Amino acid sequence: MKVTALIMAGGKGERFWPRSRKNNPKQFLCLTGDGKTMIQQTVDRILPLVAMEDIYIATNKDYKKLVRQQLPELPEENILCEPVGRNTAPCIGLGAVHIRKKYEDAIMLVLPSDHLIKYKGMFLTVLQDAIKVAEEDNNLVTLGITPTAPETGYGYIKFNPGTIQGRAFAVDCFVEKPDTAKAKEYLESEEYMWNSGMFVWKASTILASLEKHLPKIYEGLLRIEETIGTEDAEAVLNGVFDTIPSESIDYGILEKEDHIYVLPGTFGWDDVGSWLSVERMKPLNDSGNVVEGNAMTVNVKNCIIEGSDKLIAAIGIRDLIVVDTEDATLICTKDSTADIKKIVENLKICNREKYL
Amino acid sequence: MKVTALIMAGGKGERFWPRSRKNNPKQFLCLTGDGKTMIQQTVDRILPLVAMEDIYIATNKDYKKLVRQQLPELPEENILCEPVGRNTAPCIGLGAVHIRKKYEDAIMLVLPSDHLIKYKGMFLTVLQDAIKVAEEDNNLVTLGITPTAPETGYGYIKFNPGTIQGRAFAVDCFVEKPDTAKAKEYLESEEYMWNSGMFVWKASTILASLEKHLPKIYEGLLRIEETIGTEDAEAVLNGVFDTIPSESIDYGILEKEDHIYVLPGTFGWDDVGSWLSVERMKPLNDSGNVVEGNAMTVNVKNCIIEGSDKLIAAIGIRDLIVVDTEDATLICTKDSTADIKKIVENLKICNREKYL
Repeated sequence: MKVTALIMAGGKGERFWPRSRKNNPKQFLCLTGDGKTMIQQTVDRILPLVAMEDIYIATNKDYKKLVRQQLPELPEENILCEPVGRNTAPCIGLGAVHIRKKYEDAIMLVLPSDHLIKYKGMFLTVLQDAIKVAEEDNNLVTLGITPTAPETGYGYIKFNPGTIQGRAFAVDCFVEKPDTAKAKEYLESEEYMWNSGMFVWKASTILASLEKHLPKIYEGLLRIEETIGTEDAEAVLNGVFDTIPSESIDYGILEKEDHIYVLPGTFGWDDVGSWLSVERMKPLNDSGNVVEGNAMTVNVKNCIIEGSDKLIAAIGIRDLIVVDTEDATLICTKDSTADIKKIVENLKICNREKYL
Repeated sequence: MKVTALIMAGGKGERFWPRSRKNNPKQFLCLTGDGKTMIQQTVDRILPLVAMEDIYIATNKDYKKLVRQQLPELPEENILCEPVGRNTAPCIGLGAVHIRKKYEDAIMLVLPSDHLIKYKGMFLTVLQDAIKVAEEDNNLVTLGITPTAPETGYGYIKFNPGTIQGRAFAVDCFVEKPDTAKAKEYLESEEYMWNSGMFVWKASTILASLEKHLPKIYEGLLRIEETIGTEDAEAVLNGVFDTIPSESIDYGILEKEDHIYVLPGTFGWDDVGSWLSVERMKPLNDSGNVVEGNAMTVNVKNCIIEGSDKLIAAIGIRDLIVVDTEDATLICTKDSTADIKKIVENLKICNREKYL
């Protein structure tokens, strides 16, 4: 069966402020230091499996220009612009109707645009395994990550070790982000995986689920599908997204469906969820620091310092994240990264647009 | 007797890097936020006692232009340019021979250019008391500060509570910077004062002491004195400073002399010795922070943040000093301020002149 991909690239990446900005969010940044942006890496790594013309990018309309700049070989009509963010269910549905319109049916890889995957060959192998499971019996397949720590920032998937389809376990249930105690329990039980937000299914399968569980969204998607390629397309898309509810694919579909399988991903995944992930992406020096750019340190330990043009002179500091950009410098303790969004909120409240 | 003043302004102010730079050190900066630089404040506060034409500024020749800019009413010939720093004894001697040349003899106030004095009226009263003591019996008078903490960064003066001259105690001995245990002992004994580095004496008195205890320096000073106002002045000054030894007035004279008195200064003195003194100069907000310039904070406590044009976003940090300037940002724990000089040293070693 034809294999297509939908890459979701509508996020604002506020957790990577001040590098990530409203007009240039995380997925369009080069965070790993290899010269490619996150979205370019995402496309590159699936090209052995999916032709460029079968890759769709769902993004906010404000980012269309960035997508075209960074992915010049992608057909323009494959950039699906959400007029407004309505969470993952409408976004994935939008991709599915485009794919149905073009191919009647096809396998659809659903991938975030801002994750890091270290072992690209293994990733392709896992995707191929997932495709096999998705082709059979209208299964919905998610890629799970074997937990290595009691993370409270991820959703968890409880799998059923006794029911196997190919290389996938049947999903018992999806679990929302746990507290630390629960996360420890999940980790120790060895019956949970992290929900990576990567999915594999047939367009027909997910559309059937949307019709069943989210009929209002599905109706809207049908109207969009009818006008694809016509002059009414944009107006209808705008009208539908204006009125349909926001819904996540996890909560709206996956938690309610059966025939869901989870494939353990062992491909060095990182969701690059905060500045802390820089430590996982880049080598530490002898003092446990990641120091880049124009920086000088004296007695600095376990810090992440991302310098820019200005000289950063750091003395005696511990467990801090320092990120310098042209017009803003972040100085944040490692256990306060969740509060970066408070700075972004404050900037919005104070109308300091230039820093957003 | 005529009252003159010698203001010592040759310091490099490295402890105030990155605001203080080689070409614009601390004494020429406005650190208190009242629009006047440290040296301007120093001159202003003694004008009720000393005429502008009787104020001498001893400084490095590189700073002559800055002195002229900041003190345009000061006669140019009152700027005494040291060709090279030789510590305080030659510096004070240079001032003394200029004063002797002009007035034969006069009272000489010796003052650093970079201290803060909160109670200016009381300061003038203490100076007047000191002048009285200095006029009698060729006494050397130092201004002492009653310790309020076991500071290890100052020299201490042990005074003799039983021997009083006017409002001054006789000095028992001078003590070098102590360790914390010693400093605590001094504080509790109530028989010590901090050495403020401010002195009052007759030019004739200090020159007699220089002749007695530092004859090589005194010989050089005599040669300089002979050529003041002649075309040979600069060459002789350069030649003498090139060959005379470095010596501090404390070690070279005061520790060896008798007839030394210390006047307790109760005028709100601060030597503005490091970024920590910013907390004493400026009001703290409810979280114990001093925050200035373009800065935004979330859960920040007991920090000093001196912003500049760039936005400083600080999250979760404690007990840090953050100083942003046009080309460099310092991030330093409060107990690491002594290491700022290591950054300056590193910059010298790396030939990064633009940051010095």
